[in-house]
Amino acid sequence: MQKPSIPKGTRDFSPSEMSGRNYIFDTIKEVFHSFGYLPIETPAMENLATLLGKYGEEGDKLLFKILNSGDFKNNLSERDLLESNSPALGSKISEKGLRYDLTVPFARYVVQHRNEITFPFKRYQIQPVWRADRPQKGRYREFFQCDVDVIGSNSLLNEHELVKIIDNVFSRLGMDTVIRFNNRKILFGIIETLGEGGRMTEITTAIDKLEKIGYEGVLKELSERGLQEHTVDRIKPILKFEGDNTGKLNYLDEFLKSSETGQAGLIEIKQLVNYLEKDPVTADIEFDITLARGLNYYTGAIFEVKSKKIDIGSICGGGRYDDLTGIFGLEDVSGVGVSFGADRIYDIMLQLNLFPPGSEASSKIMFVNFGETYLSPVFKYLNQLRSQNISSELYPDAVKIKKQLSYANSKNIPYVGMVGEDEIKEGLITLKDMKTGEQESLNFAKLAERLTR
Amino acid sequence: MQKPSIPKGTRDFSPSEMSGRNYIFDTIKEVFHSFGYLPIETPAMENLATLLGKYGEEGDKLLFKILNSGDFKNNLSERDLLESNSPALGSKISEKGLRYDLTVPFARYVVQHRNEITFPFKRYQIQPVWRADRPQKGRYREFFQCDVDVIGSNSLLNEHELVKIIDNVFSRLGMDTVIRFNNRKILFGIIETLGEGGRMTEITTAIDKLEKIGYEGVLKELSERGLQEHTVDRIKPILKFEGDNTGKLNYLDEFLKSSETGQAGLIEIKQLVNYLEKDPVTADIEFDITLARGLNYYTGAIFEVKSKKIDIGSICGGGRYDDLTGIFGLEDVSGVGVSFGADRIYDIMLQLNLFPPGSEASSKIMFVNFGETYLSPVFKYLNQLRSQNISSELYPDAVKIKKQLSYANSKNIPYVGMVGEDEIKEGLITLKDMKTGEQESLNFAKLAERLTR
Repeated sequence: MQKPSIPKGTRDFSPSEMSGRNYIFDTIKEVFHSFGYLPIETPAMENLATLLGKYGEEGDKLLFKILNSGDFKNNLSERDLLESNSPALGSKISEKGLRYDLTVPFARYVVQHRNEITFPFKRYQIQPVWRADRPQKGRYREFFQCDVDVIGSNSLLNEHELVKIIDNVFSRLGMDTVIRFNNRKILFGIIETLGEGGRMTEITTAIDKLEKIGYEGVLKELSERGLQEHTVDRIKPILKFEGDNTGKLNYLDEFLKSSETGQAGLIEIKQLVNYLEKDPVTADIEFDITLARGLNYYTGAIFEVKSKKIDIGSICGGGRYDDLTGIFGLEDVSGVGVSFGADRIYDIMLQLNLFPPGSEASSKIMFVNFGETYLSPVFKYLNQLRSQNISSELYPDAVKIKKQLSYANSKNIPYVGMVGEDEIKEGLITLKDMKTGEQESLNFAKLAERLTR
Repeated sequence: MQKPSIPKGTRDFSPSEMSGRNYIFDTIKEVFHSFGYLPIETPAMENLATLLGKYGEEGDKLLFKILNSGDFKNNLSERDLLESNSPALGSKISEKGLRYDLTVPFARYVVQHRNEITFPFKRYQIQPVWRADRPQKGRYREFFQCDVDVIGSNSLLNEHELVKIIDNVFSRLGMDTVIRFNNRKILFGIIETLGEGGRMTEITTAIDKLEKIGYEGVLKELSERGLQEHTVDRIKPILKFEGDNTGKLNYLDEFLKSSETGQAGLIEIKQLVNYLEKDPVTADIEFDITLARGLNYYTGAIFEVKSKKIDIGSICGGGRYDDLTGIFGLEDVSGVGVSFGADRIYDIMLQLNLFPPGSEASSKIMFVNFGETYLSPVFKYLNQLRSQNISSELYPDAVKIKKQLSYANSKNIPYVGMVGEDEIKEGLITLKDMKTGEQESLNFAKLAERLTR
């Protein structure tokens, strides 16, 4: 006999978890729609050629690969089998992988369907992604991303719009957040000014760890990566810089005066700040020079959002990418987008008790089953309630009333309806309020009214 | 340069396709909720031990297997590599597979979570499934199932409820359907009466093909499967039987009088017919003695639904299974459920033009971008519209008006708002109706009213 289980790092979602998750997804979708974004979906499986090389070496290792179907061994030579290492053999017996994020499939989608798309293309996408990461608290091998992107427009109004979307989502969910932003061009400008322009990835990767490994940790990592002491010294004030947005901008104006890219980044940041002054948000918003974001396809603005109350890491992040579709043959299409992490948002909302009471769906009423003789009026009532989308059910078995009530109770069904001989004669329903225990007799019209309140 | 493509048998869904699909999913969910069913979700990947052997030999071959991550070749001997055939080697390098349907994961879920579940457990599940089938028109390797089941109750009221659910879904979608039903016990009774009780699977499999290969085809297949001529002769009238439900029931009363199981099936069918007389449905409903349904876990009632207008095969089907959870160690838990095929329903609705006009979501209004100077009032209007969930957008670039209008046009945005120097002075918005081309000036309150109409 098998003892049933699921693969590590994956989860089942019960009705109660689903109701919380759907509350989050529905809120996010509502906001996306209110800003004119429309949904697309892409397949769970993509060709490995689409995925490989897009997430760095580490990412390639974390792809779940699908074994070719049929007689996959057929074309393999003895040499293939014995002499290839696992990745090499893997690539011979697997052509497809599960999607790792929604951004690369989106870029693939845009290129593949470019002739059907009206640009600027505003799309959102809410689907699971899979990563063969080591499972740990809050990190899963299957999790949902909620991506919203606009592609085909360079306007910084898009960056502003995304900040507004982030603010709208978290306001509606009742979460207090800090939205941090930066610009990759500024980071590049800083690194260029330090004379290390060729080491953009290494240095940003180290800076990106500031929160995780701390100030000293980053300095150590920079030295280990071969940066000279005087260069590390010049990074120190940037890592530690405090002050308001204006203070930071003034400092950078001076620091970046010889870097064209850095200057361009500053202009972009200032424009975004200007839009946010004209049309502000309710969240805290902070220009953070040390925000780096790991993914290398970002080329302009970058964003990261955290809860102010619970330190669980980033709950939303993204940025502008100037050439994501270039890898699939469509050049010069700039896009910007952010991705909401539904799992962490769920955890925070649960911990802070932010789900609205009664958001867990259940039937509004359960009718007691007194046996065949008494079913006809109940059928009629059920049809009428359901046609008004009032969730209602009939206990399927004519068992003891106590058992039926206990079912209603454990499913949080607020009302129980009873239709026996007397009720049928009088055309009434006995309604029991499961919270107070009170019972009363009423006709169907009154019952329906009660249930829609 | 890669030419982007997706694996064969999989699909991208554009915003317009998504809007039709979501219309179907939302309708189905609405009905499920109105009957008191709640959603669960299970992981895309299941352990192969959970999946293998549940769908017959053919099904095992159609499972998509996930290559073990990391150094999967590590534990393999030279003999493993060279002497195993593909399935044997596959089972050594793969422990997980993509789910093939929602029923087996549901059974696994019920057993795994039995201590948290209140029985009878009414759940629905809408998720994609994957099968390495040969792709063809209307058959995909990734497709969505919408399953609704109640488990932990033997009552035939559940069967009746499912017929009501089917009827409700297709009524709301505007589709004319025929719901055919039968009972596996009757099929077993017939085969038992013929003295072939040991060949249930073979004979039902042959009968199941009646629509596909026709009357003569089934007879031929039965002979080929080794049935004697006089037995085949006795099946003939059953395959050809015409008449109303009462006629069929009378015929079977006689035919099955010596089969206990057959009699039990008849009692069940009569009870269901009785419920459907007390509480009828709008769809055509037909007791079909030849309906068999391929899957072997069915033990009682079976259902199949077809469109009356478009012959595309089954669009919904299911039945009762008395021991599905038994394979995972939980005995004596009977369940019944049906599954809606969203893809075929979509195809039919598209062909018959059944999607309600305007169901394709788009922004209700797009504001023209006249440049930085004129943005502030537009920001204000957008905030107010969006807070009322009125989808609205601002064209992100201050390009020629013609280009902006052409974008609104191709996205079917019904109204375009213009706020220039005069409008700002007067506190008005010039609104262009994109259908009629008419323009008028109005204040924001009037605009909002217009857009909510």
